[in-house]
Amino acid sequence: MVIGIIGGGQLARMLALAGYPLGLKFIVLEPAADACAAPVAEQLRGDYDDETLLAELASRCDVVTYEFENVPARAVELLIGKVPVYPPPEALATAQDRLFEKTLCRDLGIATAPFAPVNSLQELQDAMTTIGYPAILKTRREGYDGKGQVVLRNRDDLSKAWKQLRGVAAIVEGFVAFDREISVIAARSVSGELKVYDLAENIHKDGILRLSQARENDPLQAKARQIVGDLMDKLEYVGVIGLELFQCGDELIVNEFAPRVHNSGHWTQNGALTCQFENHLRAILNWPLGATDLKGRAAMVNLIGDMPVSQDVLRHSHAHLHDYGKEPRAGRKLGHINLCASDETLYAEQLQALRKLAGEI
Amino acid sequence: MVIGIIGGGQLARMLALAGYPLGLKFIVLEPAADACAAPVAEQLRGDYDDETLLAELASRCDVVTYEFENVPARAVELLIGKVPVYPPPEALATAQDRLFEKTLCRDLGIATAPFAPVNSLQELQDAMTTIGYPAILKTRREGYDGKGQVVLRNRDDLSKAWKQLRGVAAIVEGFVAFDREISVIAARSVSGELKVYDLAENIHKDGILRLSQARENDPLQAKARQIVGDLMDKLEYVGVIGLELFQCGDELIVNEFAPRVHNSGHWTQNGALTCQFENHLRAILNWPLGATDLKGRAAMVNLIGDMPVSQDVLRHSHAHLHDYGKEPRAGRKLGHINLCASDETLYAEQLQALRKLAGEI
Repeated sequence: MVIGIIGGGQLARMLALAGYPLGLKFIVLEPAADACAAPVAEQLRGDYDDETLLAELASRCDVVTYEFENVPARAVELLIGKVPVYPPPEALATAQDRLFEKTLCRDLGIATAPFAPVNSLQELQDAMTTIGYPAILKTRREGYDGKGQVVLRNRDDLSKAWKQLRGVAAIVEGFVAFDREISVIAARSVSGELKVYDLAENIHKDGILRLSQARENDPLQAKARQIVGDLMDKLEYVGVIGLELFQCGDELIVNEFAPRVHNSGHWTQNGALTCQFENHLRAILNWPLGATDLKGRAAMVNLIGDMPVSQDVLRHSHAHLHDYGKEPRAGRKLGHINLCASDETLYAEQLQALRKLAGEI
Repeated sequence: MVIGIIGGGQLARMLALAGYPLGLKFIVLEPAADACAAPVAEQLRGDYDDETLLAELASRCDVVTYEFENVPARAVELLIGKVPVYPPPEALATAQDRLFEKTLCRDLGIATAPFAPVNSLQELQDAMTTIGYPAILKTRREGYDGKGQVVLRNRDDLSKAWKQLRGVAAIVEGFVAFDREISVIAARSVSGELKVYDLAENIHKDGILRLSQARENDPLQAKARQIVGDLMDKLEYVGVIGLELFQCGDELIVNEFAPRVHNSGHWTQNGALTCQFENHLRAILNWPLGATDLKGRAAMVNLIGDMPVSQDVLRHSHAHLHDYGKEPRAGRKLGHINLCASDETLYAEQLQALRKLAGEI
């Protein structure tokens, strides 16, 4: 079976690495000359909406998926009817627009921050009378890692914030005073089989994920499972989803979801019985999903901007290095370290050391 | 860092898959057009002793290793002095010759079956007066998976057996009435760091490995560790070794060793904290070795001759499929299934089902 992937970054690379043992082959569509998936997949080099290359992808692949949510709608249109595309285009369209995303949650009775669509400064001013400060003005589309977001602390910020977004369709969201940022990764297959991983507790800095720790038997696991299951069923979702949530007391509030394998699920490569990458592939092929059991304690530390020396990572007995083979650049995700251990003391000691090595603390 | 591998079969493929997360790149030297490592490594296509391609391998790689023990001596000669080659040529030369192998063990005080070199029918007849029946006549070189071996049940077999070997240098070995066939996989780095995996209990059929089960806390672990450590130190070994042993009572007898990652160590991919493939790469790069701890129960079932339907494997919740992407052919190793579980009942049930699926029972 041949899997097509739109995008040839680290997520495509890790999908391919997880897929070869299943006997799968991979073709990625990616314009970059130094695509980090290229050493492990055939690359069709061109734009994501290149008509000729998309036709080739459709004709040579058994199923097509994508590794980022900003896939041009036109690319999906060109594929539909020629080859199965998962996650389904409806889920993609919803995830591409914060307003659609939040509205879907509200329709399903899933808690979100208070929100309102904003298409003008006037609408922003009106919305803020009910939403209250602080709040965040976000572009409806194309934001990631904290890009396209402006914090609103009081009325004086509104005009400047609106200008900063350059008039694109936006959404304003009330600030959530959360106790924890958590995420839940789940896989749903074509036939509707659902597997949900143990939730992860996340730490972001400057909008970029830095640390995820898997939490076995978390009291909010059942609630998170219910929410992600409801969302996936409603969207007739196929593949892996990454759902980001805020915990406020014993309440869970949806922040956003990504229709793809997710950075906060990278710990599953070494910490779960079946990793998110393998389960994504099994889901889109309608193969039975693998067990998601957590094995002991597991954490993921992102490597941002520059890489530590490999040996300095690997001298920690329970660390697993994941180097994406990318050129260093400020703010760029270059790799991650997974830490898995059953001994709590060893886990705590090595996690502390690895976070320091990654420059996170 | 770029790793060169002589041979482009499934062991090279799995080395590459384990090495990409470490940020490594791979070039394989392999004559076959359908090399199963080709989708995950650059292939230099040509014979293993092709002078031009070996020079290219030496100039483009940081270190060269191999995936089979029958590497032509000439290939190694052409590389030496140009690029580090691990495991070291002396270990390769010893492993390539059953007489050298057994003699080394005897010199180290490690038990083997009684043996004698055989270069003529007369020598065979003489040797059998002390070795006793049954015995096995084996070619000194180039045998694998039971090939190049003849069983000697009585004096009448000698002449025919000697003819069958067509006059090549041979060794005759006394038959070992073993209780268990076991193997131990170990890694030793350039600086001498040693890691030894939990030993595995193996079942062969027609000379081909069919099942390996890792054994935590086996009473013979310490003895196996001592033997493999002594051998590796003596050989100044670098990389992973696969040492096959017979257990007779509480005695361990060396059968043979392979200077490479080993089929009976494939369970480490899912059952150990760091797999044999990753530790081989870390050893030859002189990077710190990874912890080898066994996680619960672990087994490996070989898939020989034809592949089961992937879904039939994967519907067993704790099974991991490893499909080498090879064309089916009688007796050919096409893949394996790893089973890892902490629950003993689940492990036993799924192992039984997977062995049936693989046609082993």
